[in-house]
Amino acid sequence: MNHNFKTLCFGELLLRLSTPSHLRVEQSTSFNIDYGGAEANVAIALSNWGGETSYLTRLPFNFLGKSALKFLKYNNVDTNPSFEGGDRLGTYYLEVGIGDRGSNIEYDRANSGMSTLKTGMIDWDKVLENVDWFHYSGITPALSQDAAKACLEGVRIAKSKGITVSCDLNYRSKLWKYGDAPQKWMVPLIEASDIVLGGKNDASILLGTQFQENDGYEDVPKRIKEQFPHLKYVATNLRQSFSATHNRISCVITDGIETYQSRWFDMPNMLDRVGGGDALMAGLIYGLQHFKSDLDKVVNFAGSSSCLKHSIKGDALICELDEVLRLMEGQDSGLVQR
Amino acid sequence: MNHNFKTLCFGELLLRLSTPSHLRVEQSTSFNIDYGGAEANVAIALSNWGGETSYLTRLPFNFLGKSALKFLKYNNVDTNPSFEGGDRLGTYYLEVGIGDRGSNIEYDRANSGMSTLKTGMIDWDKVLENVDWFHYSGITPALSQDAAKACLEGVRIAKSKGITVSCDLNYRSKLWKYGDAPQKWMVPLIEASDIVLGGKNDASILLGTQFQENDGYEDVPKRIKEQFPHLKYVATNLRQSFSATHNRISCVITDGIETYQSRWFDMPNMLDRVGGGDALMAGLIYGLQHFKSDLDKVVNFAGSSSCLKHSIKGDALICELDEVLRLMEGQDSGLVQR
Amino acid sequence: MNHNFKTLCFGELLLRLSTPSHLRVEQSTSFNIDYGGAEANVAIALSNWGGETSYLTRLPFNFLGKSALKFLKYNNVDTNPSFEGGDRLGTYYLEVGIGDRGSNIEYDRANSGMSTLKTGMIDWDKVLENVDWFHYSGITPALSQDAAKACLEGVRIAKSKGITVSCDLNYRSKLWKYGDAPQKWMVPLIEASDIVLGGKNDASILLGTQFQENDGYEDVPKRIKEQFPHLKYVATNLRQSFSATHNRISCVITDGIETYQSRWFDMPNMLDRVGGGDALMAGLIYGLQHFKSDLDKVVNFAGSSSCLKHSIKGDALICELDEVLRLMEGQDSGLVQR
Amino acid sequence: MNHNFKTLCFGELLLRLSTPSHLRVEQSTSFNIDYGGAEANVAIALSNWGGETSYLTRLPFNFLGKSALKFLKYNNVDTNPSFEGGDRLGTYYLEVGIGDRGSNIEYDRANSGMSTLKTGMIDWDKVLENVDWFHYSGITPALSQDAAKACLEGVRIAKSKGITVSCDLNYRSKLWKYGDAPQKWMVPLIEASDIVLGGKNDASILLGTQFQENDGYEDVPKRIKEQFPHLKYVATNLRQSFSATHNRISCVITDGIETYQSRWFDMPNMLDRVGGGDALMAGLIYGLQHFKSDLDKVVNFAGSSSCLKHSIKGDALICELDEVLRLMEGQDSGLVQR
Amino acid sequence: MNHNFKTLCFGELLLRLSTPSHLRVEQSTSFNIDYGGAEANVAIALSNWGGETSYLTRLPFNFLGKSALKFLKYNNVDTNPSFEGGDRLGTYYLEVGIGDRGSNIEYDRANSGMSTLKTGMIDWDKVLENVDWFHYSGITPALSQDAAKACLEGVRIAKSKGITVSCDLNYRSKLWKYGDAPQKWMVPLIEASDIVLGGKNDASILLGTQFQENDGYEDVPKRIKEQFPHLKYVATNLRQSFSATHNRISCVITDGIETYQSRWFDMPNMLDRVGGGDALMAGLIYGLQHFKSDLDKVVNFAGSSSCLKHSIKGDALICELDEVLRLMEGQDSGLVQR
Amino acid sequence: MNHNFKTLCFGELLLRLSTPSHLRVEQSTSFNIDYGGAEANVAIALSNWGGETSYLTRLPFNFLGKSALKFLKYNNVDTNPSFEGGDRLGTYYLEVGIGDRGSNIEYDRANSGMSTLKTGMIDWDKVLENVDWFHYSGITPALSQDAAKACLEGVRIAKSKGITVSCDLNYRSKLWKYGDAPQKWMVPLIEASDIVLGGKNDASILLGTQFQENDGYEDVPKRIKEQFPHLKYVATNLRQSFSATHNRISCVITDGIETYQSRWFDMPNMLDRVGGGDALMAGLIYGLQHFKSDLDKVVNFAGSSSCLKHSIKGDALICELDEVLRLMEGQDSGLVQR
Repeated sequence: MNHNFKTLCFGELLLRLSTPSHLRVEQSTSFNIDYGGAEANVAIALSNWGGETSYLTRLPFNFLGKSALKFLKYNNVDTNPSFEGGDRLGTYYLEVGIGDRGSNIEYDRANSGMSTLKTGMIDWDKVLENVDWFHYSGITPALSQDAAKACLEGVRIAKSKGITVSCDLNYRSKLWKYGDAPQKWMVPLIEASDIVLGGKNDASILLGTQFQENDGYEDVPKRIKEQFPHLKYVATNLRQSFSATHNRISCVITDGIETYQSRWFDMPNMLDRVGGGDALMAGLIYGLQHFKSDLDKVVNFAGSSSCLKHSIKGDALICELDEVLRLMEGQDSGLVQR
Repeated sequence: MNHNFKTLCFGELLLRLSTPSHLRVEQSTSFNIDYGGAEANVAIALSNWGGETSYLTRLPFNFLGKSALKFLKYNNVDTNPSFEGGDRLGTYYLEVGIGDRGSNIEYDRANSGMSTLKTGMIDWDKVLENVDWFHYSGITPALSQDAAKACLEGVRIAKSKGITVSCDLNYRSKLWKYGDAPQKWMVPLIEASDIVLGGKNDASILLGTQFQENDGYEDVPKRIKEQFPHLKYVATNLRQSFSATHNRISCVITDGIETYQSRWFDMPNMLDRVGGGDALMAGLIYGLQHFKSDLDKVVNFAGSSSCLKHSIKGDALICELDEVLRLMEGQDSGLVQR
Repeated sequence: MNHNFKTLCFGELLLRLSTPSHLRVEQSTSFNIDYGGAEANVAIALSNWGGETSYLTRLPFNFLGKSALKFLKYNNVDTNPSFEGGDRLGTYYLEVGIGDRGSNIEYDRANSGMSTLKTGMIDWDKVLENVDWFHYSGITPALSQDAAKACLEGVRIAKSKGITVSCDLNYRSKLWKYGDAPQKWMVPLIEASDIVLGGKNDASILLGTQFQENDGYEDVPKRIKEQFPHLKYVATNLRQSFSATHNRISCVITDGIETYQSRWFDMPNMLDRVGGGDALMAGLIYGLQHFKSDLDKVVNFAGSSSCLKHSIKGDALICELDEVLRLMEGQDSGLVQR
Repeated sequence: MNHNFKTLCFGELLLRLSTPSHLRVEQSTSFNIDYGGAEANVAIALSNWGGETSYLTRLPFNFLGKSALKFLKYNNVDTNPSFEGGDRLGTYYLEVGIGDRGSNIEYDRANSGMSTLKTGMIDWDKVLENVDWFHYSGITPALSQDAAKACLEGVRIAKSKGITVSCDLNYRSKLWKYGDAPQKWMVPLIEASDIVLGGKNDASILLGTQFQENDGYEDVPKRIKEQFPHLKYVATNLRQSFSATHNRISCVITDGIETYQSRWFDMPNMLDRVGGGDALMAGLIYGLQHFKSDLDKVVNFAGSSSCLKHSIKGDALICELDEVLRLMEGQDSGLVQR
Repeated sequence: MNHNFKTLCFGELLLRLSTPSHLRVEQSTSFNIDYGGAEANVAIALSNWGGETSYLTRLPFNFLGKSALKFLKYNNVDTNPSFEGGDRLGTYYLEVGIGDRGSNIEYDRANSGMSTLKTGMIDWDKVLENVDWFHYSGITPALSQDAAKACLEGVRIAKSKGITVSCDLNYRSKLWKYGDAPQKWMVPLIEASDIVLGGKNDASILLGTQFQENDGYEDVPKRIKEQFPHLKYVATNLRQSFSATHNRISCVITDGIETYQSRWFDMPNMLDRVGGGDALMAGLIYGLQHFKSDLDKVVNFAGSSSCLKHSIKGDALICELDEVLRLMEGQDSGLVQR
Repeated sequence: MNHNFKTLCFGELLLRLSTPSHLRVEQSTSFNIDYGGAEANVAIALSNWGGETSYLTRLPFNFLGKSALKFLKYNNVDTNPSFEGGDRLGTYYLEVGIGDRGSNIEYDRANSGMSTLKTGMIDWDKVLENVDWFHYSGITPALSQDAAKACLEGVRIAKSKGITVSCDLNYRSKLWKYGDAPQKWMVPLIEASDIVLGGKNDASILLGTQFQENDGYEDVPKRIKEQFPHLKYVATNLRQSFSATHNRISCVITDGIETYQSRWFDMPNMLDRVGGGDALMAGLIYGLQHFKSDLDKVVNFAGSSSCLKHSIKGDALICELDEVLRLMEGQDSGLVQR
């Protein structure tokens, strides 16, 4: 590794409350506690792989918010950029499915710290100091108009400083409720970004990307790149869902010249499906930072990251670099290490 | 839906004690608690789908019996028809298998309220007031001669009132120990019933149904219907068992004219196999109440109900109507709802 | 059964601490407790099948050591030959994997009772009294030179008394750290043994067995038998590992004249992979004791034992004889017994 | 009992998430789930004592809200008056203390169904049909101005129908944030009520009650009664707090003529302190409904209810009438019933 | 210690299912599993103190019965005298109280192996071979007339062989339901016994013992001894119950000449109250076997045993001899041993 | 606060495995996991109170060691001074007592990183950079002669740099097994220290302190100060042990001129007794850093810290500064904060 990248991730930090042992909510007498969020999951994965990573969020310093921050520290993520604010910690409830019963999610994140974030609250010059890579997702601008403005403020400043900016589109139909059309904010955001991850639905709704009749999911990166030629790389996450516990995934990336697809990862016994896309995003960032000339390696690293995530409880991929590399190289799948 | 059917289910209410985490009984330091029973499971499923459902059983009002009744109330089942009696709550122990180790069941239901039920104990006119559908199973007559008499008493009164009567044959080899041949009671019971669910073994032993050499499992409904031409519908539950955690199921029904079979539901990751047949029975009742002209829809609804049950812990199918319908229509299998 | 064999197993008795619910070590707030060890697992399986079985080990009589011995008693294993000694109970930590994340093991067995065992500590004449079968594994000689000497002492005395001696080679790369080449001890040990179980790697490293270019895993027994013609039977355990929770296994044995292989056992939903080889060894011993003229039955019994182990939590196969026989005969795979 | 009172309780229904085993929030990997709320706890206690009780609340019909309602049904509370509305289920987090570490509560109930309740949403004539007793608390008017208006609307209608109206003042300093002085709403509410429970702090802040220099806690009922002579009964709950797990309680009531105090209940091993006041309120209501001429019995029944609550996990007193009566009569304290 | 006594205990072996964390039955989603019974608890305590102890019971060899026997083996109790029989394992449910909420017990032991025991089923000469001490309780004759006969058969044979016979009266009002007056069986049983433990109630009801007006609990042994002068020792267990979790106990014994009372043991934080009397009985047997000339030591050992039991989960006192001795000598109460 | 002290703690970091729910080891099927150690507990407490705190230890970087370090990071302790080494993570097993059954500890720390620490392994100049306060305990020199030398090396260098050096004597009879008399190392260590905490036993054995006939526990600080007049402060921890769950504590300190004693803290319901002394040590350090002129405040802060620790699960006091201050000031003992 020629350089230790310093990555700053920016987004909400959430409390996840999930049912144990595949119980329904109404059958449960307890909820498992995890802390995460699309961008925090990226930070945790990168940090556990040895990268210097910090997190920027706004959250209340009550016992839940403090516990959430401690979880980031536990994973070696620098939480100094984060600051106090907002009435409550964003929360979501997860009823964990199995087989032909899908998981259900109930978001409860109104009035969280990030939902009420405003421009001017963040000293961007300070938090971006020495940062090489800035990562955000389409969730923050979906929370409120103020949050969208603050996000665009940060992305533009990062861009102007020559920092690499990556975005996971992450369209969520239950958000974007404040009135503005998503494209109003997402198009200028992508114009100030360098790397984008997103699926067909994300691109259509958030960016207005046009697809041709025969376009498959693997053509998504190409079309986004055509729409935003300034982007360095565009990637997409392919997922086939056979049941709540059996999926297959693959990753595609393009630099506008060539398109690379990883092998398919079959996962007949998934432990935890949430965060699979965030782990893929983390894999892309790591791959582009360290294998940059080798996009084939990048997509297989990203796919391996995502696959491994499905075997780990919680929102975040918590593993060592070596475990991703071994899976990428097809070594010893599932053997006992002894 | 043109009519809100009022269904009365009649049978035992049992305590189930099962081992957690696929442990053997001798490895367990605790048992999970669930309440159920073949007919109660039908009542719970119907009630959670919005039907007006009540339950008729006899059980002691000790802390176990009261908890069992509260569980029915929790699921919106009217327990007013139920009454106090018997020495103990019927119980069964379930050692939960996995892979090539099958589950083991140890029944402990002697001297329960239903085993010592007698004719004259129930004011049938009162409990059947405004009832549209009466459901029982072959388990009650298997408990004791007195229980068989009381069951026949009720079924005949229901029939005489024009109430639709359904029976799940549910042959259990460990019951029927009191001396009478099963057919002595089951044949007159079926003669007073309208709808029957049962497999080849159930029909042979309980009804003396004759099968032809080449008859498969899917021919069972036809043969029962031939034997009891007055029956409106006869159905059977097909199950292929590859391991304790991997089964396939399908449902067949006949009206004597045509036979319909649902698609096969493959379940490679079953969470809880018990109650799969009861959920199918509930699905049949719901289907015949609401889709009656469309037997193809009925069997696919029943199959979907049963399939969904295998993803839910406990004896009973606890889900909303919409979840069965989505599975029946093949939507979004196992996707996260967010 | 013409004879109730008395089997003495000799080896370490270990504490296993494993993560619950497939959590990573760093996510766990508790460890599950199990007691086992390669040779103890054999003793437990044999004892639960009705054999008269005793265990010889050396361990400290602190609360952990006493609990470990009580666990053997619980399983009807006679612990009278075992005696107090050593600073600590050998321990290992198991991070339980799933899917594409393999399990990780961290051994912590330095200074255990068996590691510091010395010749002369055991009154072999007494512990071998009335013993028909003596079983050990390649783990004991791997612990220390003293342990290797003591092991050889016992094996030779057993041999000289006409007791059948079996060895599971069980090569562990993290052991054998005390300087001597493994073959220095393993070759004379095998020369004093009658029956050997081992894979290609075990044989190459521990015995220096030579393989031909096209030899597959199923040729291992033949080659070992060629090298040690005095051996009565040589067996090997075939395992295909698709993921941490999906393996296939089979068993091969040779008497030098003919080679027999069991059917393949497919295990797509393994509950606990550890101890699969020990259960196979127990199955071989039981088979050779009771079906001796029928090696085909022996390998299928051994394969069934091993397969069943993967559905049982902990290191040891805890089941009744009847369960292995039913699986061997392919009956009722995974059906509910009710 | 000469009359089966029909009681309607009106208030929020909350999700409580509490730490298991006296862990701190940051140490917990799960939260225990309970449903409750000051007025719901009253309804549950009354219903389990055999009273006909119903609950009126507004909450979203997501999986949390539905589970909360099912919990009321489980306890025989009629939920028909409750209706759908609001963005989220009111929630609170409870870090359970022990010894010298007190419990901590973090409310998270903004935008709940009751916080956004408005006048006109409830058909009071319908929900009050056949109701004998209407119970509310000072928490509802503390949520928002709209909620205060709606509460006053209901209380006045109930009063006008001759229904007995009781109020638990329940001052919560973290609520009442919407700008109006509490007395603006609480004074007219009490003017339309018949029975009030409250402490010195509640009365001062919510009602502006004046106390004399030497007034003790036991003088509170007298002073409130002097301020509001129309009230039939005024009661207060005395609590001495030695530690998080050791309190003493007593109950005082006055009819304006005489004042009665219960014995002191010493509780050195409290299991769950929350809901102690609600259980006392339930005891008062039950007592005034059934022992009305005997205020000494009323306070001792109320004190016993409250005492018993501290031995039961969750917010609500879940017990049978007989258990309160036995404690009130000092029988068999803590003996095993066998 | 001059002699290693061989003690045979005779009685039921029960499954206990208790609520975790002081939950009510209706709040519980699991029951903790323990195995015990008045006489089995005595056997377990004696065995863990190093005595040679065996157990004689009749129970079904289903998975519950086998697990119960394994639990005795785990505690070094010889189960060879026990044999198969009866329809079900006797069971009881325990709702664990706290503070002013007492524990509740629901027996469910009809048709157990011991309830249907008959004379002639046991080969008394064989089971009593080499036995020094035979212990039974008043529970067995309370189960059924047949059980009473079989018990008397055994006690008389033991007595005739010169074996010391001890009886714990153990009156249970919910038993003795088969019609005979308890004294019909208990009087001849005590006439054939040497040592009796019992309280005032036990003696009055089971033996018809007459007490004088001023007799306290501590006079019970004297009165029983007067009634049955052949008895060597008579003891009683004094218990003051302040709450479900706070009791005080003491032990009194008489040889007819002098009466000795232990100190009082105060237990403000009891973990598990069940089996306190059985542990005292075990302490008496151990004391009389080993300290016989020193009755003061006997009662303090018995009191210490009982006290220690209240700090151990389950029915049986599981501890080492040294722990009782240290408590008896007042050493290091509650200090950390490190 | 005029200055943010930077404190470096130096010692082992241990894995603690304790039994849940007051079970005996042999009853447990799992162990709770905690990380701690005398000096680490001090670091964690100080860090959570806002101090800049770092930890210096040597441990293997296997999954246990890494998890232990992550736990420090979680608590905001800087782990940069710690480094890889040693064969295993020091471990201890805790059987958690209750009432009259004391807790038992089994140490298993041979060959840990600190046991095999040698002089020269630590770059003291680097780790002590900018450090104001250096804390160690008498446990490190008790592990091995090499560890004692390395400890003395560090203490002397710290002293020479003008850093305040504190020592908790912490005598452990099960350590100090390597041959040297404890005083050989402890006397020179104390000669290079500024502040000492210890009890009578610690001082006698480790330092050879002479006591007068009538000296009580509260005279310990005075005698140590007389022996080592260069010490700035000497403190002792008074503990009265009534049972495993009921202790009383107090703290005494002297500066050689005056002696101050805190109030007594009564703890009748202790949750976790381990680490009570370490929390007191942390309280002393904090107190001397921030209230230095006010020794009365120092001892009451230290006593409050220790008292609070007994209400928190695990080895370390995890709380906010404000909680200690509130307890010190006697506010709101055990009240619910809502």
